[in-house]
Amino acid sequence: MQTTTLSQDIVTGLEAITGAQFIFLDIQTRTHYGHDETEDYNFPPSVVVKPGTPQEIAEIMKLANQHSIPVVPIGARTGLSGGALSIYGGIGLSMERFTKIEIDEKNLQAILEPAVITQVFREAAAEKGLFYPPDPSSQGSCTIGGNVAENSGGARAVKYGVTKDYVLNLEVVLPNGEIIWTGANTLKNSTGYNLTQLMVGSEGTLGIITKIVMKLLPKNSHNVLMLIPFFKAGQACEAVAEIFRAGIVPSALEFMERDAIDWGLKYLDAVNLDIKDEVQAHLLVEVDGNYPDVLFAEAEKIMGVVERFEVDEILFADTEEQKNALWKLRRTVAEAVKSNSVYKEEDTVVPRYELPTLLEGIKIIGKKYGFQSVCYGHAGDGNLHVNIIKGDMTDDNWKNEVPKGIREIFELTVSLKGTLSGEHGIGYVQKNYMDIAFSNTHLQLMKGIKQLFDPNNILNPGKILPDNL
Amino acid sequence: MQTTTLSQDIVTGLEAITGAQFIFLDIQTRTHYGHDETEDYNFPPSVVVKPGTPQEIAEIMKLANQHSIPVVPIGARTGLSGGALSIYGGIGLSMERFTKIEIDEKNLQAILEPAVITQVFREAAAEKGLFYPPDPSSQGSCTIGGNVAENSGGARAVKYGVTKDYVLNLEVVLPNGEIIWTGANTLKNSTGYNLTQLMVGSEGTLGIITKIVMKLLPKNSHNVLMLIPFFKAGQACEAVAEIFRAGIVPSALEFMERDAIDWGLKYLDAVNLDIKDEVQAHLLVEVDGNYPDVLFAEAEKIMGVVERFEVDEILFADTEEQKNALWKLRRTVAEAVKSNSVYKEEDTVVPRYELPTLLEGIKIIGKKYGFQSVCYGHAGDGNLHVNIIKGDMTDDNWKNEVPKGIREIFELTVSLKGTLSGEHGIGYVQKNYMDIAFSNTHLQLMKGIKQLFDPNNILNPGKILPDNL
Repeated sequence: MQTTTLSQDIVTGLEAITGAQFIFLDIQTRTHYGHDETEDYNFPPSVVVKPGTPQEIAEIMKLANQHSIPVVPIGARTGLSGGALSIYGGIGLSMERFTKIEIDEKNLQAILEPAVITQVFREAAAEKGLFYPPDPSSQGSCTIGGNVAENSGGARAVKYGVTKDYVLNLEVVLPNGEIIWTGANTLKNSTGYNLTQLMVGSEGTLGIITKIVMKLLPKNSHNVLMLIPFFKAGQACEAVAEIFRAGIVPSALEFMERDAIDWGLKYLDAVNLDIKDEVQAHLLVEVDGNYPDVLFAEAEKIMGVVERFEVDEILFADTEEQKNALWKLRRTVAEAVKSNSVYKEEDTVVPRYELPTLLEGIKIIGKKYGFQSVCYGHAGDGNLHVNIIKGDMTDDNWKNEVPKGIREIFELTVSLKGTLSGEHGIGYVQKNYMDIAFSNTHLQLMKGIKQLFDPNNILNPGKILPDNL
Repeated sequence: MQTTTLSQDIVTGLEAITGAQFIFLDIQTRTHYGHDETEDYNFPPSVVVKPGTPQEIAEIMKLANQHSIPVVPIGARTGLSGGALSIYGGIGLSMERFTKIEIDEKNLQAILEPAVITQVFREAAAEKGLFYPPDPSSQGSCTIGGNVAENSGGARAVKYGVTKDYVLNLEVVLPNGEIIWTGANTLKNSTGYNLTQLMVGSEGTLGIITKIVMKLLPKNSHNVLMLIPFFKAGQACEAVAEIFRAGIVPSALEFMERDAIDWGLKYLDAVNLDIKDEVQAHLLVEVDGNYPDVLFAEAEKIMGVVERFEVDEILFADTEEQKNALWKLRRTVAEAVKSNSVYKEEDTVVPRYELPTLLEGIKIIGKKYGFQSVCYGHAGDGNLHVNIIKGDMTDDNWKNEVPKGIREIFELTVSLKGTLSGEHGIGYVQKNYMDIAFSNTHLQLMKGIKQLFDPNNILNPGKILPDNL
């Protein structure tokens, strides 16, 4: 597939659909929509289009099909796997005008348009006494549509599940321009093949999501947050599984290597923490619920578990301010690393008990290929982010050696019954590692699904599936 | 498609795969495997085969593909939509030899073979201090494989979700005889299209499940169960939504019409309940957790909510024995109705606030077409079972009028943003109502998925998709 150039006819056709004011051909706009948060890639679309209704999108898809023009749905461009990059040019379909929120208090549901910012939605639900748990670290800027497309997780997934666990029904514009609802607005559904869940995590390759029906929960009123310093990183990982075995399901259970917390502290002036030199890792643990006494009892149980390991003094966040500071520290790690060096971020996930083995393996692989890594993430669900730092590595090694190391990390992950991505998606940057997780038969089934939905391969081409399939 | 007759060659081929002792051609065995719990259908397979390994199933699928012989996976035959009926004869593939359970305490997971009885699994998990919540009413006899195939729910789904919410990974023999794992043993996964969730609820039409990796939770130690009699059935339905709006997520919230409870009481000698004539419906409400004080506080909150409606005295089940009796009463309704009359059971599901509208509509439709219905089910998730009773209706009306009424019930369900089946599946008996829930485009996508996985249409043909598609 080659980069697309657009004829004047097509531009005229697009203008007729959305109005000329929503069509952008200038290089500034196209460059702006040509990147997300994935390394330093920029693939400008040939044209940026900002439709306002599903019907307009349907017309755009019909036009694109006629002329075999790639169409890439674009959300807030906070993605970490390059899912929204217009790698073959074509139409960059910005969803930014789809911002409606409707909270259905009677059914504990919400109907959302895809460009609603995740945090805006969470706050709108909270105002009605309701709770939408998924909270990706980028919640302040990412959108619900992107969360659905990538099946985003976040810190609360360990207790409350990921985006997919809240999606009940989707309105989708199919690549051929037809519009369907994938399911029903119900908590239970055994009615035909589950196209809703097929669409979730499909990274904008099977259809364009225009409405999302989400399940909501009643809001919790209390939580307890503690930061536990471990003298041995492996023991921090071991403690994770032990906390669950003690009968506790924390609402967050985050792991940060020493390096991760140091980078974060350097980056954030406002947060002060005095950490002993010998501390190798931290667990950030939260329990939530409606009954403070219960939460204190659970916090004590957790202390009982972790004190069997070599830990320093546990810090309890007493105020909202302290809690926010600790969360900010955790959420800022990726940004802090990024601000300091060229890097690649992998999103490994394993059964949680395998975390120490994964962490140890990553360090050994790093030594072998000469790279440093900063590891942190959602240890409660075995989801470890691995930031590989270029530092003073040569360009040649960065280009040729690091991918071999990444391949070995993924091979290790899969051998531990884990997989390539827990919550960031495969997108553009991980697609050529897919053979590690899946047999050819399996990949051919995925390709068949793509062909069924999108026979002309115009919707977000060149994502998820490996190039040589 | 016509009913299949098998040549001696094929029988010899099957014998070579499994050994002759696992091949059954006698009419008694075939008839035994020809029915499930769906009305009074019996469609004997041409041969019953009891394979012992995924590899044997793979060989059977290759043979069946060569000769275009239908293959129907058969579990415990407790299904209510005819999913396991060999409607075109062929090979009835009984999975009964797949009974291994492996509990992975370190990761809070289980690896199960499909013929494990659901209750046996739940008890095995409980012995290790772990909890597998889904509990279909048939849990004492249904199997996990069937639960996955139908995406079964049960009473605890309201708080804990349905089968799909626990399935992490599946080993599947594809119709072409290849064996894949659909995903990874992880709580988070954003790695390609979600074939795991495509397989869940596919009713044995896309592949044969041979291993299931399930998520487990830590076990709860306490619960409180109460039976609330309502003088108005509509108010019982209204109270359901109000309980959630009060911030409570009960672990079960079951609805029984007066008739349902009367039929149950008649059927069960052991349970005694004195119910006033004026009582129209009951809610059976359970809360669970680890802290009895919290549960009593929640039970009080629930009482506060329901006492705003016209209710009789609330019965608290004080002992395990009383709890079991109430659950037995609830679980036995379908059987009680069945023992008394020819019947059809529908498995409607709507957003929970729409329950009163659905219930009222069903009664009006019943009057219009001359049938009586007994309604009960999982009101907490809007899942209402509708048992339509033949009673003294003429055969002609039963055959011609009732399907029109069922169509109207489903039309009402869909208009309320619900759908045809919450937890029983579509199978054989509901397939020709699928046009009510889905557009032709949508159904063609489902058909395309079926063709992709099973190009020769040999795996459980004639299920889910309408005949005229």
